[in-house]
Amino acid sequence: MDFGELERKVVVFRDARGWAKYHTPKNLAISAVVELGELLEHFQWETDEEILELAENPTKREAIADEIADVIIYLTLLAHELGIDLDEAVKRKLEKNEEKYPVKA
Amino acid sequence: MDFGELERKVVVFRDARGWAKYHTPKNLAISAVVELGELLEHFQWETDEEILELAENPTKREAIADEIADVIIYLTLLAHELGIDLDEAVKRKLEKNEEKYPVKA
Amino acid sequence: MDFGELERKVVVFRDARGWAKYHTPKNLAISAVVELGELLEHFQWETDEEILELAENPTKREAIADEIADVIIYLTLLAHELGIDLDEAVKRKLEKNEEKYPVKA
Amino acid sequence: MDFGELERKVVVFRDARGWAKYHTPKNLAISAVVELGELLEHFQWETDEEILELAENPTKREAIADEIADVIIYLTLLAHELGIDLDEAVKRKLEKNEEKYPVKA
Repeated sequence: MDFGELERKVVVFRDARGWAKYHTPKNLAISAVVELGELLEHFQWETDEEILELAENPTKREAIADEIADVIIYLTLLAHELGIDLDEAVKRKLEKNEEKYPVKA
Repeated sequence: MDFGELERKVVVFRDARGWAKYHTPKNLAISAVVELGELLEHFQWETDEEILELAENPTKREAIADEIADVIIYLTLLAHELGIDLDEAVKRKLEKNEEKYPVKA
Repeated sequence: MDFGELERKVVVFRDARGWAKYHTPKNLAISAVVELGELLEHFQWETDEEILELAENPTKREAIADEIADVIIYLTLLAHELGIDLDEAVKRKLEKNEEKYPVKA
Repeated sequence: MDFGELERKVVVFRDARGWAKYHTPKNLAISAVVELGELLEHFQWETDEEILELAENPTKREAIADEIADVIIYLTLLAHELGIDLDEAVKRKLEKNEEKYPVKA
């Protein structure tokens, strides 16, 4: 799935439910924070080694994956509202990073 | 670009710079929060109407798009570290949402 | 209660439970994000007017107050770990704000 | 300084500048996230040991302290808007924590 397809799917999903009116920029940004907080809850009291071990458990890995997906879904909806082409945005940012941090010869 | 291609690109980028050692789960999760904070800074004192107007300005829209892209890039790196297939994760979450919130007939 | 008293109380509380080993700077910072996410969840789909109305309900207001208190408790523990005197820090920041944003005559 | 005094000071500060109109619940909550993101930026690529060392440097410690203070200031303004007595809220939450996590005999 690419970003264009994801955008179409989440917009169809929310329009079928009449949720567009709740999807203001601030509400979607706040929603991304809520989901990112839920992602961080999995890491709260664990060491990095323990987190990597946790992620080997399929149930736990899926729970963490769900939270990452939720953040991405809300950011896709936010980009949609703001007229941002996410595919173009990510490609452009990767290019900016290449220029900002050149590989040392 | 799909999530598999994005993952390959960001991993090649960071390995070329020897940054893998900094990319622990917690550091990447914290980085996503930092970038999401920078995204929210654009919205801090604006109304939703003002944000939508701001986003019509190409320079401002690109600045906002950069922050969204940064969050997605860090989440892609985090998913990579945890052995999460982001494409599968997002598809599965969309299906769960369909089941959780059925469209009223 | 002042910040010094709050610091003493939360440190006594966690030491009585043997939790100091979990209270690394990153874990406490992540915990503040988790709690702030829970606070934002109360605001996610509400307008500002609806939030102000919600807060008139004592049960709801207490639930929101609990989340604000949790963020402050984790920040107090973080300040303690970093040798930061929170009372002094807040006073100094208020003075900096006075200088940075002078009142127009 | 106790929470009541802090509340009075930040409300006087913002009223002297005519900023009350910007201090909606969502804007203040978003502002707390922005400042918490700036706090986390100090920790982004450091280990916990490096963060503790950083905090021994007075300039760095003050920079971190400023960010913690900013989060607390915005949460105090948010509590004010919602009619929450922060002193009471923190005391009550400490009591709830005592009940929820009894010390093992």
